[in-house]
Amino acid sequence: MKKFMNSVETILQESLDGFAAAHADLVTLGENRAFVRRATLKPGKVALVSGGGSGHEPLHAGFVGHGMLDAACPGQVFTSPTPDQMLAAAAAVDTGAGVLFIVKNYEGDVMNFDMAREMAPGEVASVLTNDDVAVDNSTWSAGRRGVAGTLVVEKMVGAAAEEGRGLVALQALGERINGATRSMGVALTSCTVPAAGGPTFALGPDEIEMGVGIHGEPGRRRRDMAPADVLAAEMMEAIAAELGEDPGEVLLLVNGLGGTPSMELYVMYHAARRLLEARGLRVARSLVGTLVTSLDMAGCSLTVTRLDRELIALWDAPVATVALRWGM
Amino acid sequence: MKKFMNSVETILQESLDGFAAAHADLVTLGENRAFVRRATLKPGKVALVSGGGSGHEPLHAGFVGHGMLDAACPGQVFTSPTPDQMLAAAAAVDTGAGVLFIVKNYEGDVMNFDMAREMAPGEVASVLTNDDVAVDNSTWSAGRRGVAGTLVVEKMVGAAAEEGRGLVALQALGERINGATRSMGVALTSCTVPAAGGPTFALGPDEIEMGVGIHGEPGRRRRDMAPADVLAAEMMEAIAAELGEDPGEVLLLVNGLGGTPSMELYVMYHAARRLLEARGLRVARSLVGTLVTSLDMAGCSLTVTRLDRELIALWDAPVATVALRWGM
Repeated sequence: MKKFMNSVETILQESLDGFAAAHADLVTLGENRAFVRRATLKPGKVALVSGGGSGHEPLHAGFVGHGMLDAACPGQVFTSPTPDQMLAAAAAVDTGAGVLFIVKNYEGDVMNFDMAREMAPGEVASVLTNDDVAVDNSTWSAGRRGVAGTLVVEKMVGAAAEEGRGLVALQALGERINGATRSMGVALTSCTVPAAGGPTFALGPDEIEMGVGIHGEPGRRRRDMAPADVLAAEMMEAIAAELGEDPGEVLLLVNGLGGTPSMELYVMYHAARRLLEARGLRVARSLVGTLVTSLDMAGCSLTVTRLDRELIALWDAPVATVALRWGM
Repeated sequence: MKKFMNSVETILQESLDGFAAAHADLVTLGENRAFVRRATLKPGKVALVSGGGSGHEPLHAGFVGHGMLDAACPGQVFTSPTPDQMLAAAAAVDTGAGVLFIVKNYEGDVMNFDMAREMAPGEVASVLTNDDVAVDNSTWSAGRRGVAGTLVVEKMVGAAAEEGRGLVALQALGERINGATRSMGVALTSCTVPAAGGPTFALGPDEIEMGVGIHGEPGRRRRDMAPADVLAAEMMEAIAAELGEDPGEVLLLVNGLGGTPSMELYVMYHAARRLLEARGLRVARSLVGTLVTSLDMAGCSLTVTRLDRELIALWDAPVATVALRWGM
């Protein structure tokens, strides 16, 4: 294992210190590195807090800023943050309008965010994301996993919070966006967790994991490598089966899992877009990037969100975070 | 080799088609995919054109847009674009104030951009970037290579062009920025060129290439893997030796070469920043990302630019490209 680090024990803290130093205009690191929060809060706004195991960067700390999250709690690599971190984050960013937790559906995250919600002195609600259609239950999840669609929920709910909507409305909006969003991923290689020192799973030289999770959890099946069009079709079939037959407008997010170059992501975008169009779905908004990752895994995921006017306006609204920035 | 593609012959064109479709708000693909240009030109502005072999994305097409490039010419993977592409790009974006070519110092690029400059009917000047301090001559360069510092030149000269400065002034500015900029890279793994089908060079399980080029060219030496602080110190020593002893303000760019996760880049940023501070240099501006790449290579480069008030203002100026966006 060759990784840029000084030790397994310090990789996360040095990374967080570097992140906070590089982006002091946008974010501040909380005490004991419990959370990353916006440098400037907006009083009276519902505060959005997310978090989860590290190793998925830029999710979530890269999405902290105007128009998106107020705070993100980084756990150890692929390990949930603690309720204490969530409570500290909520306390730091709650300006009186309440706090909305955005939680990916993994047992550790769900349990800890639930505990924090119960312990929090103020008003707290939560939204669970479970956009991954690959499998119905997984290694660390009862029910479907939350993957790259979480970004879409965070962006749109973040915009609505910035507009001044209340906690109950934001929770309902988050659930509606999650319900309109479906994803599936594929791994060409395993990730390597620093503390493990070797690959999480083994793949043959021509083998891939179709439906992989963002921690390297098993997907639907192992299969042979195939042309991009074939892989995109298998993933899009699974996604589209759940989006329904109606024509309409969608957001297409092609997300790199860490080790896949931009050129290949755009080949997959090209394939996925044509598949959507062939189904009568118009790609009205697009995002292509390495945004919700699994450390150094080579692979990608496709995410499709059904759009309406409201969701398009929320997507287009200004955002200023480390990893997503437009309109300001 | 597992890559998301349909064939070696079509990977570039499908990727470009996907890029143009995903970002139609910002860019337009030229005829025969000869170049990517801004969707909207600004009449009377000097046009900035860059380009080079593909495989370094988001450089250069990802830097086309307001406040940066007007057009970028993509060659085949690691192969210079042709003079015809450069002429077509120049013709498409020259609104009468002339064209500035920004050229990385590789023999093919230099020769072809020179030829295009001589053949162009309008006024054309060029700036050569050669920020890589690793080696004085390299596989495809007489003199030092142009690497991630090219991004800094494109950003700052792009801002100055947007302000309305003339061709001669922009050329001089570009040369000044290049002269104030030094970079060095390190590879943990080789890249794999699609047409080659296997790694460009071989590294042992604990071996790295210090001073690697962005096409996998040899650097200063092979060495054993070491802690991030040690690697950053070796690179920063080479860079700082050329920046001079004076205190002052700098831009620190930590650039991923393709396959290196965000967490590790921030560890390197953290190390590099402290090394600069120990030399009396204040890190006034920062950029951390996977921006000037070598396909799927795991590795990173450090780039330092000495700043003054003018360069800080140019760096901070609004930019709206696929890969760099702020202030608008």
